[in-house]
Amino acid sequence: MDEIPNILASRYASPPMAAIWSPSGKIIRERKFWMAILKVQKELGLNIPQEAIEAYESVLPQVDIRSILRRERLLKHDVKARIEEFCALAGHEHIHQGMTSRDLTENVEQLQIREALQLVRQKAVAALLALSRRAEQWKGLVLTARTHNVVAQPTTLGRRLAMFGEDLLMGLGRLDQLIENYPARGLKGAVGTQADQLAFFDGDSAKVEELEARALQHLGFESVLTAPGQVYPRSLDFEVVSALVQLASGPGAFATTLRLMAGQDLAGEGFDKDQVGSTAMPHKVNCRSSERIGGFCVILEGYLAMAAKLSGSQWNEGDVSCSVVRRVFLPDSFFVIDGLLDTFLTILQKMEIFPQAIEQENRRYLPFLSCASILTEAVRSGTGRETAHKLIKEHALAAAVDIRAGQAGENALIERLAADSRLGLSYEKLKTITNQEDKLLGRARSQVDTFISRLSPLKKRFPQADSYLPEEIL
Amino acid sequence: MDEIPNILASRYASPPMAAIWSPSGKIIRERKFWMAILKVQKELGLNIPQEAIEAYESVLPQVDIRSILRRERLLKHDVKARIEEFCALAGHEHIHQGMTSRDLTENVEQLQIREALQLVRQKAVAALLALSRRAEQWKGLVLTARTHNVVAQPTTLGRRLAMFGEDLLMGLGRLDQLIENYPARGLKGAVGTQADQLAFFDGDSAKVEELEARALQHLGFESVLTAPGQVYPRSLDFEVVSALVQLASGPGAFATTLRLMAGQDLAGEGFDKDQVGSTAMPHKVNCRSSERIGGFCVILEGYLAMAAKLSGSQWNEGDVSCSVVRRVFLPDSFFVIDGLLDTFLTILQKMEIFPQAIEQENRRYLPFLSCASILTEAVRSGTGRETAHKLIKEHALAAAVDIRAGQAGENALIERLAADSRLGLSYEKLKTITNQEDKLLGRARSQVDTFISRLSPLKKRFPQADSYLPEEIL
Amino acid sequence: MDEIPNILASRYASPPMAAIWSPSGKIIRERKFWMAILKVQKELGLNIPQEAIEAYESVLPQVDIRSILRRERLLKHDVKARIEEFCALAGHEHIHQGMTSRDLTENVEQLQIREALQLVRQKAVAALLALSRRAEQWKGLVLTARTHNVVAQPTTLGRRLAMFGEDLLMGLGRLDQLIENYPARGLKGAVGTQADQLAFFDGDSAKVEELEARALQHLGFESVLTAPGQVYPRSLDFEVVSALVQLASGPGAFATTLRLMAGQDLAGEGFDKDQVGSTAMPHKVNCRSSERIGGFCVILEGYLAMAAKLSGSQWNEGDVSCSVVRRVFLPDSFFVIDGLLDTFLTILQKMEIFPQAIEQENRRYLPFLSCASILTEAVRSGTGRETAHKLIKEHALAAAVDIRAGQAGENALIERLAADSRLGLSYEKLKTITNQEDKLLGRARSQVDTFISRLSPLKKRFPQADSYLPEEIL
Amino acid sequence: MDEIPNILASRYASPPMAAIWSPSGKIIRERKFWMAILKVQKELGLNIPQEAIEAYESVLPQVDIRSILRRERLLKHDVKARIEEFCALAGHEHIHQGMTSRDLTENVEQLQIREALQLVRQKAVAALLALSRRAEQWKGLVLTARTHNVVAQPTTLGRRLAMFGEDLLMGLGRLDQLIENYPARGLKGAVGTQADQLAFFDGDSAKVEELEARALQHLGFESVLTAPGQVYPRSLDFEVVSALVQLASGPGAFATTLRLMAGQDLAGEGFDKDQVGSTAMPHKVNCRSSERIGGFCVILEGYLAMAAKLSGSQWNEGDVSCSVVRRVFLPDSFFVIDGLLDTFLTILQKMEIFPQAIEQENRRYLPFLSCASILTEAVRSGTGRETAHKLIKEHALAAAVDIRAGQAGENALIERLAADSRLGLSYEKLKTITNQEDKLLGRARSQVDTFISRLSPLKKRFPQADSYLPEEIL
Repeated sequence: MDEIPNILASRYASPPMAAIWSPSGKIIRERKFWMAILKVQKELGLNIPQEAIEAYESVLPQVDIRSILRRERLLKHDVKARIEEFCALAGHEHIHQGMTSRDLTENVEQLQIREALQLVRQKAVAALLALSRRAEQWKGLVLTARTHNVVAQPTTLGRRLAMFGEDLLMGLGRLDQLIENYPARGLKGAVGTQADQLAFFDGDSAKVEELEARALQHLGFESVLTAPGQVYPRSLDFEVVSALVQLASGPGAFATTLRLMAGQDLAGEGFDKDQVGSTAMPHKVNCRSSERIGGFCVILEGYLAMAAKLSGSQWNEGDVSCSVVRRVFLPDSFFVIDGLLDTFLTILQKMEIFPQAIEQENRRYLPFLSCASILTEAVRSGTGRETAHKLIKEHALAAAVDIRAGQAGENALIERLAADSRLGLSYEKLKTITNQEDKLLGRARSQVDTFISRLSPLKKRFPQADSYLPEEIL
Repeated sequence: MDEIPNILASRYASPPMAAIWSPSGKIIRERKFWMAILKVQKELGLNIPQEAIEAYESVLPQVDIRSILRRERLLKHDVKARIEEFCALAGHEHIHQGMTSRDLTENVEQLQIREALQLVRQKAVAALLALSRRAEQWKGLVLTARTHNVVAQPTTLGRRLAMFGEDLLMGLGRLDQLIENYPARGLKGAVGTQADQLAFFDGDSAKVEELEARALQHLGFESVLTAPGQVYPRSLDFEVVSALVQLASGPGAFATTLRLMAGQDLAGEGFDKDQVGSTAMPHKVNCRSSERIGGFCVILEGYLAMAAKLSGSQWNEGDVSCSVVRRVFLPDSFFVIDGLLDTFLTILQKMEIFPQAIEQENRRYLPFLSCASILTEAVRSGTGRETAHKLIKEHALAAAVDIRAGQAGENALIERLAADSRLGLSYEKLKTITNQEDKLLGRARSQVDTFISRLSPLKKRFPQADSYLPEEIL
Repeated sequence: MDEIPNILASRYASPPMAAIWSPSGKIIRERKFWMAILKVQKELGLNIPQEAIEAYESVLPQVDIRSILRRERLLKHDVKARIEEFCALAGHEHIHQGMTSRDLTENVEQLQIREALQLVRQKAVAALLALSRRAEQWKGLVLTARTHNVVAQPTTLGRRLAMFGEDLLMGLGRLDQLIENYPARGLKGAVGTQADQLAFFDGDSAKVEELEARALQHLGFESVLTAPGQVYPRSLDFEVVSALVQLASGPGAFATTLRLMAGQDLAGEGFDKDQVGSTAMPHKVNCRSSERIGGFCVILEGYLAMAAKLSGSQWNEGDVSCSVVRRVFLPDSFFVIDGLLDTFLTILQKMEIFPQAIEQENRRYLPFLSCASILTEAVRSGTGRETAHKLIKEHALAAAVDIRAGQAGENALIERLAADSRLGLSYEKLKTITNQEDKLLGRARSQVDTFISRLSPLKKRFPQADSYLPEEIL
Repeated sequence: MDEIPNILASRYASPPMAAIWSPSGKIIRERKFWMAILKVQKELGLNIPQEAIEAYESVLPQVDIRSILRRERLLKHDVKARIEEFCALAGHEHIHQGMTSRDLTENVEQLQIREALQLVRQKAVAALLALSRRAEQWKGLVLTARTHNVVAQPTTLGRRLAMFGEDLLMGLGRLDQLIENYPARGLKGAVGTQADQLAFFDGDSAKVEELEARALQHLGFESVLTAPGQVYPRSLDFEVVSALVQLASGPGAFATTLRLMAGQDLAGEGFDKDQVGSTAMPHKVNCRSSERIGGFCVILEGYLAMAAKLSGSQWNEGDVSCSVVRRVFLPDSFFVIDGLLDTFLTILQKMEIFPQAIEQENRRYLPFLSCASILTEAVRSGTGRETAHKLIKEHALAAAVDIRAGQAGENALIERLAADSRLGLSYEKLKTITNQEDKLLGRARSQVDTFISRLSPLKKRFPQADSYLPEEIL
């Protein structure tokens, strides 16, 4: 039988993200960690032959997954299997001294998580910058804004994009805080007390501290937990996944809205020359990438549920109920967010808009979009607010009926209002209101400027992000 | 870089379950479905050359995943890629006529789901029967039952197992109902109206019905939806996953309880000769398989969250936001439940109990376990119920303090109660109560009998289940 | 400070549903259950004075929530507080003899659940019948069906409704199975062995069985668990909530689709004379009830997550980690589904459609909607399927560009195709295809008939459902 | 029928938390916000009579929930109902000018959220300080640490508590970041462009900015969104709930572990004089509060699922699918975390430990707890690591069998190892190892010191937290 691939890694995640989580990627990281510790142990005075170190280093890249699996089947212990494999390859038995399994796996998994978080951050910045370019491009393109999926007031397309961008920016801020504060578990021994490390160094606390500090330096961690148990608190995994869920919010709402716009023929996500929308309906141009982003959000929520359940459910100094769960949700959450961001970037690059269709919609609904302004003006002219509200509502509902019936080529609300003396606004006055596009748009354009200006620090901090382009997506 | 395997399929699921969901497993099922339809189309009078049918059949098993993927990268349409691949191999263009993508994929995925459900049912029956053998074996082994994790009343170990068994039996009942009623979407065309099929048969409704009926017969479905859209309602996927979650309940509670028992040295899940519990602590005998079952339950809840979100969120006649989500949770839910049941069966086979330790615990707490009976007797002897309750509580709390302090070799509750004239029960009377094991056990043993007798119909219906043994688990 | 009401009960649930779950509703049910048991106990020979029974019955309706709460604050035990309150009111101490707390609460809560499920079933049937009336009414109203939110093929509005109806029908089927099989925990004592009951009847098993049977008869249960622990397996609660989630699927998808239709001005959910859509924008007519249904679905998924976590996590014979969780999700799930169904029924009653707008959309997209048929015809005329698909796609994309640009009053696809000799279909032939509404609709109308006919058994079984109308919703 | 209270608010939340979310609490906050805006509007030159302001202020506290509800039933718009009620009371129509509903509700709800977050932070600090006092108290109390629920190595009880404390400290850190960065939506008008505000001030941007700035100052917000739509991104709600879930992790794991310790009679959560554990079993002393904390965690995860689902699912500039969901999960999440922290504080205050029982357990398992040290020593004496591991495992398993069988009063592992010449360690050497409590404990005690020292900045920042005591819990 053919092996079943991780569908998220193979179809959606980028090679750099997959490399972080691949079986050999993890084993190589573990072996490098062992080597770093071994060298420090030697420096701290332990009797470790140089030739052993050299022997280990020479076989370090030789990763034979099947051989390791054979050992695990016998031992029923995955770390022990990897220790024995590495030792057998090297012909020595020096690694993992004074350590417990979790001294290895917790720290290396946290290394993978931090690397993955950093890759995600890089892409999130790239997405923000790509989005801001589109927001700038369409800053002045007037668009019918909708609430409750019903036409509301005018905005601009750039302003709509800035809205999703600000959501993403908040998500990025949280991701950033997480990365900056993310602490390693450290070398803490079987139950966290460092008894194993102390015994190994014959009670010399200074050496225990030195070893841990340099091991974490090798991994690149700046902070470390004080008093974990066998494992670090799984609330930390939850924090990671919840940061990813939050990061997906902006792209998720953007994608949903693009699907709505495509349904009204106002925009599309782009369509390649050879692409096929439907095997049966040749005319179909579907927002499949946008739909996929929606799907990715759903998947993330499932992994969030898994992470949430592990958070706060530790028994004593730790148990491994979490093991199989983390094997699933940790890599897979990152594959999803990675694929989501690449998909988002692809859409931002290829999306099309149909300005004439957008303009048609604006024309059709303009009098409605002006209702708030008309109401303000009516109040200013002396009509009671509630009375004016009622009158406008009455005529607007009637005008809507006409439009739906196709009897009026144009929206007749202005004519209707002008004809109603109770409101006290002349046709000219009303026309002036609906024609004052600038007023109707409020501060849409300057809000786009403000949004874009908030991104400049990011642009400086992550200089490569601006030019990042994802590979062709499936 | 090495490919990343589906960790659930490769580490935990059994080969038969993996085969249902493997990439080639799906493609072969699709091709067989196309062939079945092609043949019926020919029989219904369409001009399909016999040599085309033969050509397709001869290349049917040739599945080249990479070639299909190359096509998909160009077409951005997975089904179109598989059509073109199959046609290119056969040198003909006859399959998929009068069909839309979803006429293929929905039905074939439902076939996979039904096959997987049937495999799960088989294993669930096997697990129930294995559990019932253990329940029979330990039907009379008196055990200290606990509520709130605190000693409560006596039960027997067999009775405790029957409790988890009844939970599983209810889960099985629901699974069974699901399998028996599970309807196929059928051949319904692009939006469900069968317009594509009708057009294909030039408006001949009878032929459309005949084709659909025989296609479903090929798949083995007995019921079919009347009015689906492009896709079947995703509530049906939700029903599938929720049935699996429910099925996991009995094993989940069993595994948690076994972990608790192991913590008190009353039982263990078995430990292989070469097994290693901890690299640092050689004495460790961990309930790793039981913990894994707990982990499996958590994963299932995550997939349930995904399935629940798709349920009821269809736009119009359908969209494919669900696509990527279903690629994840459908196979993976089945890998999890499959691994869970095999793990459960393994534990049932290898678990150990420590009767002397169980007996020690019983002795230590027996007077407490008799409190309910003593209360009943005191009331019968004329003491007010609330008064008696208060007195017994007072002495029991004092006796507990002694036990914890290690001052009393034995639980001194009986002596204390006998010495308190307010209760009005003699030492002999009290001793009689605590010695009436039969009374204290209530109907524990006959309940086990009743439980086991409820399984006989299953035993007959699934004759192979009784002898099913999972392969060695990791 | 003002008391904070249960927002779901007070704003959305109907009075009959609220009555099932109100504090006094539960207490009354508990007292009635105690009385039923007391009477059977007397009949079975226990010395229970008739005057005590009468005293209890005379105070049964006197429910003083605050007094009970005062007792609970002292006792830290809610059932004990309710026992003492009832006894203090009656001046006797006879109830709850031979019972444990869970003998009371589990069975009474299950009674509430079953009553609530039955009420939900009644409303679900009502909703199905209301939906079917609308499906019948609009069976022939041609509508542009959409997949991926993009126009696909024609259907009818009635057919679209039947699609959601079939989803609801499946959900109802599952609800029905659940109600028919739902077992009570029964009178099983502290750890499920019936030791308390046996002790009470001095070892007389027959009396224990008789008491349990008659207690369940009082509650109306037909099946009972054999071997539960302190509590019934929480997988049963999960089954309940998951059935509600599934039931919400049809209405959920319907409501989402109605929101999409309203966004395109094809339909609305109705708008009352005095209703206000927006305080600032008088023209707004929002689908607030449909949006609310979407919100209800989200809430249900949250309660599902709670129920799923309790399922399978029992420690030994039971613990009460579940207690506070069930206080929340059990009543609240029912308030939600109750409000959801009443909202759905309200929309079905008040919804409007705008046939002229629907007709305009059909006209605009008709040539696209015919693409599948044109493809079939082209193949029949000898053009290769893949070639034809490519040609049609090319022209359809061009026609779509024109439409968006507003340059073509009408969709020019037919003209374009007729002008392309490679396709080999004349203008007349193409026009014939697009004009054959009957063919394009496939079996849409007969599928509606079939769907409706499947409801007749329900109509007979639940005669009142057909005329059920919800109260005015908020 | 009696009204159904919010069970979380009435049973578990503290009065200050309930006050934030009570119906009148919200309405009062809204009215104050309207008044603040009205006054600024007047200052900015609008013609608002002073007597109107005075009239509004005089009726501000008059909240008649039923009257508002009557209005809402007619208008189908909750904000409009509250506007009309307030205006009717005051006899003026000046509030809410130049505002939309969401200008009111979004900002006021965010005010409630921020106040609630601050209250939670206060309690979390109090809990940390209470925990640290216990950690200090039991810093030296040697305890058998467990992993996989099986004895592992020694630790101290204080060290175990520090472990849960560090988890809580991380959760607090995240909560703190959230509070410090939490931005208001601001006065942004119907679709976020401030068109309504601009129209109201006749295009004067400076006045619009001034009004918004001073409105937010009234609310106490320091940052504001740039480009929201009708609503602020719901990812912000998700961030709030996920911070609460993370905060619950430390108490959750603590409570689970206390339940495990109670099951082994090592500790208890305290038991009041009049408290009743079970109506049938007078001896029962249950960890009901700890179980409740577990239940609270489950509930929070359900609300998290709701919040996650809203995050990223916005349509266009906003819709109100979220409305009913937020009515549930926002207040209720805070009631839960509030109750959870008060419960946790209560347990910390009342918990008991049973030192003699703890000491008994240590004695029984000490030789096992020393296995890691014995292994280290054996390696140091020249035995190969893997050989030594195997030998110790063999003898440890045999010693465990003896203990379970009750044949050895004491754990005989040391004797067994001393008798096995292959290991090369004398009885004296082995005894020395097991007696070196200091070594076996590793750095447990100094880790407690480090943990406590990390709390001093908090103690200074939140001076009242140290003395906070919750009210009596139910």
